Order: sequence, then structure tokens, then C-alpha cells
Amino acid sequence: MLSSRETASHPIVVPPHGLGAPRRLQEPRLSRAASSMGSSRLREIMALASRPGVLSFAIGLPAEELFPRAALAEAMAGVLAAGPRALQYALPLQGLKEQIVGLMALRGVRCRPEQVFITSGAQQAMDLLAHLLLDPGAQVLLEETTYDGIRIAVRRFEPRVLTVSTHPESGIDVEAVASLLAGGARPAFLYLIPEGHNPLGVSLPLEARERLAELARSHRLPLLEDDTYGFLAPGGALPALRAFEEDWVYYIGSFAKTLAPSLRAGWMVVPEALVPRLSMLKHAADVDTASLSHHAIAAFLAAGRLPGHLDGLRREYGRRCNAMLDALQAHMPPGVRWNRPDGGLFLWVELPRTVDATALLRHAVEAEAVAFAPGEAFAATDAVAPVQQHCLRLSFASCPPERIDEGIARLSRALAGFASAG
Amino acid sequence: MLSSRETASHPIVVPPHGLGAPRRLQEPRLSRAASSMGSSRLREIMALASRPGVLSFAIGLPAEELFPRAALAEAMAGVLAAGPRALQYALPLQGLKEQIVGLMALRGVRCRPEQVFITSGAQQAMDLLAHLLLDPGAQVLLEETTYDGIRIAVRRFEPRVLTVSTHPESGIDVEAVASLLAGGARPAFLYLIPEGHNPLGVSLPLEARERLAELARSHRLPLLEDDTYGFLAPGGALPALRAFEEDWVYYIGSFAKTLAPSLRAGWMVVPEALVPRLSMLKHAADVDTASLSHHAIAAFLAAGRLPGHLDGLRREYGRRCNAMLDALQAHMPPGVRWNRPDGGLFLWVELPRTVDATALLRHAVEAEAVAFAPGEAFAATDAVAPVQQHCLRLSFASCPPERIDEGIARLSRALAGFASAG
Repeated sequence: MLSSRETASHPIVVPPHGLGAPRRLQEPRLSRAASSMGSSRLREIMALASRPGVLSFAIGLPAEELFPRAALAEAMAGVLAAGPRALQYALPLQGLKEQIVGLMALRGVRCRPEQVFITSGAQQAMDLLAHLLLDPGAQVLLEETTYDGIRIAVRRFEPRVLTVSTHPESGIDVEAVASLLAGGARPAFLYLIPEGHNPLGVSLPLEARERLAELARSHRLPLLEDDTYGFLAPGGALPALRAFEEDWVYYIGSFAKTLAPSLRAGWMVVPEALVPRLSMLKHAADVDTASLSHHAIAAFLAAGRLPGHLDGLRREYGRRCNAMLDALQAHMPPGVRWNRPDGGLFLWVELPRTVDATALLRHAVEAEAVAFAPGEAFAATDAVAPVQQHCLRLSFASCPPERIDEGIARLSRALAGFASAG
Repeated sequence: MLSSRETASHPIVVPPHGLGAPRRLQEPRLSRAASSMGSSRLREIMALASRPGVLSFAIGLPAEELFPRAALAEAMAGVLAAGPRALQYALPLQGLKEQIVGLMALRGVRCRPEQVFITSGAQQAMDLLAHLLLDPGAQVLLEETTYDGIRIAVRRFEPRVLTVSTHPESGIDVEAVASLLAGGARPAFLYLIPEGHNPLGVSLPLEARERLAELARSHRLPLLEDDTYGFLAPGGALPALRAFEEDWVYYIGSFAKTLAPSLRAGWMVVPEALVPRLSMLKHAADVDTASLSHHAIAAFLAAGRLPGHLDGLRREYGRRCNAMLDALQAHMPPGVRWNRPDGGLFLWVELPRTVDATALLRHAVEAEAVAFAPGEAFAATDAVAPVQQHCLRLSFASCPPERIDEGIARLSRALAGFASAG
């Protein structure tokens, strides 16, 4: 595999198997973007955490046993039995857009089907918006600690990444955003996760949402609102940012956590004027045709099955979150702190400042067969901030409550062992 | 909607609804690539051709009645009944890669699962390869008359497009490729459709494939071989280009025409060293996880259902192709010429040089309710070549044989009416 930009630009001459002329590596000249790309930090951790026998809180997998499998199978069978149309090329499904308009009302958002743009998951929404808004070298504004997917979506544009901090209890530092903008920063957008933050678990207070919407309007700053976890808050979520500002908040939704990831379905709610260009960008990316999954999801939603399913998800994820909070309370030593999330699938844990979370992960997997995601996996830039180094993310989603206590006990032992070894 | 680069860069000031200060359009600054993008010519034609009542040979839709609908429904039901795993995030499916290795043998290609990269259709393969290989302003080499999707995939890079001509009976002009390379051209790749060319219907002769493979090797020129139609040749196809050269031919396959478009599944066969970078690029685009469709396709293939299904497709598409050739023979006036394709879904028709095919299309839809794709829809660059202006593409795929004769009779009347009016 190629490992540096130099390798790509200047073919390496390697010795031949026997005698004779040297043989050049049979590799093409790669684009700058492709040859400078690092990998996804989350992917590497996934490999470590997915060793057989490891009890893992590392990855944000939704709980498989909660997938509405029978209902999806029924929807899929119905769609295929109805005729061949669902297998053919088709425009993005109007019926699905209309169902999504109904969903958005659950998030306090009024919109029209013409503002809904269907994607192959939230990641594709980020990618299309990055292509829509970013020139090479552009400024983007990210939360210092954020979802890995946005870093990966933007890095091909080699952007100047500006960051603001996000507090695990009060959310993104809105006044820091205001100062940056007042100081002349002109980011192409601010990407953030106001609800059930990944990895911080925090939901943004109402006043901060209003203030952000106002900043977006006055500075003409697009806010990319990732609402992947917006439908999961056990106690109900605040209205989405998009409810406070229509022109400058581009909403990103996903069916990955509410239905199932492999359906590869998400959506955006954007100003209607942007839809034709997003459509052309999606055409370039993967033809912008309705997928069989979109048909099945539309049938599932039209059957009115989502509200009951969401109730079940909220109840169960709430139960698992509480089980993890109880277990942390029971097992963790003094000096370890965590927040109480209002939604999402994650808890953010602060270790004593002397503990490096990535080093602890290696030890925890080896010594106690338990895994988590170290904070550095969520650094918005290549530089890992101190606030990430001694922190970690725990997912409470994919582990039944009775296993959660066992896992946290292991983690506590790992920490004790690590501290005494260190 | 934004209509020019200027609009994007300089917010327009428009008069307010009443008195008071002018109101600025609430639109963001777009990227250069997004604001300079034209639309897909094929899409506009699709709108014209899909008017109710129009008998259309315009779009390359596969025949719906030939989809293996029952078998796909069975595969999908089996996958969902087996457990929740097929709904969860998962690495690209090893089982599907292995099945694809078996498919490739039908195209004369030996490969390993590690060289197979699963995509969301052929368009995504083009898009990922464009991101892998193109820097802004790079040279690319295209057939002068080619599939619209590649133009759309590369245009975001604002490339310098070099072209070579392709003859509807002998295929791409390989010696023109050789001269360009000898003359110092250094394109990042050559994209071509050697089998059942879209739109020209031609398949490249054996010697030309060998010569191209040799040029690719000696000039270190990646060939992007789009083999979307390679499994459909009624009389059997020649081995794919990839069979002649492993290091420099990147094979692109699709299940859109052999199974069904809405499964959104395709693949590449590439040097293994490129797979990690393609994987990162796909991660940025849409997370690179197995879709439910991939699971169903793997089950369909594992059940050994493809060979019989392909036999049926080849027989029926061969029958439709012959029906169209017979109809052209029966109805077309002197001065109109067409080729006899070896595969694919398309025929290329040359009208008298005085006839503009796009103008004829408008007349044909209005006067005779018949549609086709005008040659200019397949121009590799913004400049339409003379060879495209008086030519048109007919798809024989989605029309039952008995309707084909009627449609060609209408087309012939439209041509007569157009010529006498002109």
C-alpha cells in the first residue's frame, strides 16, 4: 500500500526478483487528496475492540435486537410483491419525502417535501454538503471534539479547520463561535450535533440554540445540524436547530439509528434553492436514484409503524443509559467523572489527567477484555487536544443492561491495574 | 436557483416586497465546482421522453419484466429471516466478493477477493476512481462519444478533457490513443466501454484490446473499463480488457442491468494496493458499510441463480435487438444508417448530415409521440462534435418486440415530416 505523498508522485524503483533491470511498482499517480489521506481513527479502534471475547462499549452500533426486523421484512416483501417498479431506476421517492415531512414535525420542524433531499445515510449528506460548500483550503468550523465522519468528509478539501470547545454538560461554546465570527473568521459552515452529541452525550440548551440561529442569520453562516440521535431522547428532545432558522440551518437526518444502518438511508432538509445542485452532486456520486430500501422505508412509515417503534427504542436506550450510570457510580474510583446525557447513545468519561485513554484502551483489552473509544478518536483536527487525551466515550446502546454492569466493573479494574502499573 | 458562478460569489441584492431596505437572497457561497456545474443532458431528455403516451427508446432502462423479482424477494426474505446481522453495520461482504470472483471468470478475468471493491453502483466506482486519480485541472482521456456519467463524475475536477473518436463498427481508435501518448499527453486515465458500448453499441475487437493493454502498460496509463453491459452479449462477449492487463486496467461492473438498478450495487476489480485508499474514499462518501441489498445479492448468487437468469436476459435482449434491426430495415428511408451491435442495449443511428437530432427529437415527441436520445447527450465535452449532431441512440431494452416495430415506424414518419418541414 502507498504510504506517503512522495510514494505516489515519484514511482519507487525496487530490485527485481532475480537479475536484470529494476522493476517499477505498478501503481498510478494518485491525486493529492487521495495520497495525503490518513485513515479513520475509529476504524482502527474498531479492529482492536472487535477481538473475540471483548466486551465492547467502543462502537456506536445500534442494538440489533431492537431492529424492527419483522416489520421491515413485511414492508420489503410488500414492495416487491406489488410489481417491478421498486426495482427500476426512479426519481427520489415523493412518498418518502412526504413521510419525512411528517417525521420532521416530531422535531419541531415545519418543512415541505421540496426541501427534503434523500441520501444514502448521514455520511453522504455531509459529503454532498462538503462538495457544495467547500473549495480547497476553505475554512470550516467544527466542534473541537466531534464525530469522526465530518473530519473524513472535509479532509479531501484540505480545509483550514477552526474549532470551538464543547462542554459535556452545556454543549458547544456559542460565545466562542460569536467571537470567531466577530474577529473576521469566515468559515464555509459550522457542523455540529446539537442533540445527543457524539461523543459527548450532551444536548444543547434552548437559549444556545436560539443564539446560534441568530448568529447564523446575521453572519450568513450555514449550520450543518447532524440530528442522527434526535429521535432517541428518552425524555423527548428540544426542537431541532432547524426549527429556529430555515435559511441557514441545513438539517441532516438518518434512519441508521431509528431503523437500521444497512438500509443506507438518510435525508437533509435544506433551502429548496439548493436541491437542484445537491441533486447534480448526488448524480455524480451515485446517480441519485431511489433505492429498494427507500421504497421499503416509505412503506414502513406509511403503515404508521414508526411512532410505536421509537417509543420502544427510547425506553430501552433510556434503561441502558441508566444501567451504565448506575454501574459507573458503583464501580468507578474517585477522580473519574462522567455526564448524564439527555439522549444519544453515548457517555463521556473524564479520567484523572495523568491517564492516557488510548494507552488505557490497549491495557483494558489485554487485561480485562473490555473496550471503549478513546477521546482522541474524536479530535476535529490532526492535533489531539488535552481534553481528549484523558477522556473516553462509552456506548451504552449495543449491550444488554445485565452485561453493562459487568463491563464497567472490568473497566474499573483495568483502570486500577493501569494506574498501579503506570 | 443559482445560475452562475457570479451569483454564488456575490450575493444578489433584490428589491424587498414592500418599501424599506433591500433583502439579500438567503443563499450560501457555493464551491467553485458546485456553482460551475451544468446539469446532466440525459436528465433533461428524460423529462421530454417520459411524457405520458410517448413510446420511448430514449433511456437505457433495463426491462422491468425481466427482473428476477421472485428470486430477489426470496433472497431478501431469507436474509432478513436469518437474524438481525444483515441490518447492522458490517464490513464489505467477503461472501459477495467471493461470488464476484466467480462472475469475473465469466468475463475471462482471474482475480482474488482482495482485488474486489464493492460499490453503490458503477457511478460510485467512477466517482471514487475520479477522487483517487484526479487533481483539479488534470488531463483525462475520454471517448469523444461516451456515457454521460463519466463527464459528470470528472467535471468537478475541471479537468482538461482529451478525446479520441470511436467508430460504431470498430470501436475506440486505439492508434489515436497511441499518438496522443507518443505526443506527450499524460492523462490521469482513459475511461472506455469496450463491450456493448453506450451509446454506440460497438464491442472492441480482440486485437484492439491487446494493443490497448500494451499501451496502458508501457505508458503507465490506468484504463477505467466500464463493463456494465459485459454479461449481456447474446453471442457471448470477448474477454474483458482486464483479462489482458492486471496492473493498469481498473474494471467496473454493475448489477443494475443484470439484476436490478435499485439494488444500488456494483463493483471494481483493481490492484489490491489501491483498495485501502478506495475504502477511505468510500468511507468519506457514504461510510463503506455493507448494505442490505449486498446481503440479498450475495444470497441470490450463492443460490446459483445468476447463470440461468443471464441466459434469459441474453436471449430476450437479442430478440429485441433483432426486432429493432428488422424494423429499421423495414421503415427507414435511404440515407439513414445504423450498426449491428454485438451486445449492450443500444443501437446508434446516423441520419442524413442535414438533420439535427435534437431538433428532430422535439418534433418526434410532438408529432409522433416517439422518443430517442440525441447524439449530443453523449458528447464527452461541452462542445458537441459534428458526429453527434446528426446521430441518435435507440435503446431496444425496455420495449417489448411487438411495440418496437410500431415505434420505429413512428420515428420514420417523424423523420419524413421533419425533413419536409425543414
